[in-house]
Amino acid sequence: MKKPYHHGNLRIALLEAARARLAEGAEAALTLRDIASRVGVSVNATYRHFDSKEALLMELAAQGFDALRAAMLSASAALGSAEAIEQLYAAGEAYVRFAQQDPALFKLMFGREGRFAAYERFDQAAEAAFAVVVERVAAVQGVAPHPIGATKAAVAAWSLVHGFAILSIGGYLEALPEERRPNLRDVMKMLDVARS
Amino acid sequence: MKKPYHHGNLRIALLEAARARLAEGAEAALTLRDIASRVGVSVNATYRHFDSKEALLMELAAQGFDALRAAMLSASAALGSAEAIEQLYAAGEAYVRFAQQDPALFKLMFGREGRFAAYERFDQAAEAAFAVVVERVAAVQGVAPHPIGATKAAVAAWSLVHGFAILSIGGYLEALPEERRPNLRDVMKMLDVARS
Repeated sequence: MKKPYHHGNLRIALLEAARARLAEGAEAALTLRDIASRVGVSVNATYRHFDSKEALLMELAAQGFDALRAAMLSASAALGSAEAIEQLYAAGEAYVRFAQQDPALFKLMFGREGRFAAYERFDQAAEAAFAVVVERVAAVQGVAPHPIGATKAAVAAWSLVHGFAILSIGGYLEALPEERRPNLRDVMKMLDVARS
Repeated sequence: MKKPYHHGNLRIALLEAARARLAEGAEAALTLRDIASRVGVSVNATYRHFDSKEALLMELAAQGFDALRAAMLSASAALGSAEAIEQLYAAGEAYVRFAQQDPALFKLMFGREGRFAAYERFDQAAEAAFAVVVERVAAVQGVAPHPIGATKAAVAAWSLVHGFAILSIGGYLEALPEERRPNLRDVMKMLDVARS
C-alpha cells in the first residue's frame, strides 16, 4: 500500500502537478479531480488544501510572484555597488528571463482580470514584486522609495518590460529582421525613469 | 425551412459566433462543432471556410489587428496637423482603449506563441498594425520610416503601451492608490523615442 502523504507534502505535490499541467498548456482543462488523480489521491483529499481549482491556481500565481521577486532581487544584488540604473536594468532582464522560462506561469500571474481581489496572499506577493521595481527606480531617482514619482515611474518600467516580454514570448520580435530588432537593454535605455 | 447561408455570409456568421464565444472567455472550450451548431449548420459546412479551429481563430486575430490598425490611424489622423508626438500618444491611447474594450480578442492576438508562422494573413495584419507605430515614431524623429532607429524605438513604444494595457486589463493599476497611479500619458512621456 502506498504511504499516505504527509499534510504539507500533499499540498506541494498538488501544486507541482498543477504547474506541470499548466506548462503543458492545459490551464482551461485543469480540474482538481485531474490533479488529484495525478498525485494518486481522492479529490476529497485535495479540499483539505484548496477550496477550488481557482484557489490552487491563485496559490501557483502567488508563488510565481515570489519567484519573480527573488529573481529580480538576486539579479540586481549580484551587481553589488554598481550604478542604480544598472541594477534596475538587471532587474528588468531577470523579469524577461523569468517570463521566457515559464510563459504559462507568467500568463497565469497576469491573466486573472481582477479575480484576485479575494486572494490576499496573491495580492501581497504581487505587491512585493512590484515593490522591488519601485525601490530600484527610487534609487535611480535618488529618493526614498515612497514618493509618488517613484511609483509612477515604476509602473512605466514594469509596463515596458512586461510588454517586451509578451512580444518576445509571442515571437513578434523574432519576426523582425535582426538588424532592426532592439534588445531589451536598448529598449530600457529609452525610458527616462528620472523624468517623472 | 431555414434559408441556407450565402457563402460569404456563413463565413461572417462563423466568425461572429466565435468572437462572441471568445468574449465569454470560452477560448479553450471553443470547437468548430460548437460554432457550427450556434449558427445552425453542420460542422462539414464550416470546413468550406476554415480548415480547423486554429484557422478560424487566426482569422479572428488577423481581423483584430486590422481593427487595431484602423483605430490607431483614425485616432492620430483626428489630430490633423498636431505635433508628431501628440499623434503618437493618440495612437497609444487608441491601442489601450482597444485592449480594454475586448480583452479576450486582444489576448488572442498576442497569445499565439509563434504558431502564426503558417498564417500569412495574420502575419501581414500584425505587421501592418506595427507599421503604423513605426511611421508615427519616424515622424517624431523627423526621419523617413525606414531607418533602423525608428523600428527599434517603435518596439519600445509598442512594449510600453502593451504592458500598460495588460496591467490595466488585469486590474493591477487599479490596485494602486489613485494618487500614485500614473495615467497612460504620464507613462508615455517617460519614453524618449527620439533617443534611439
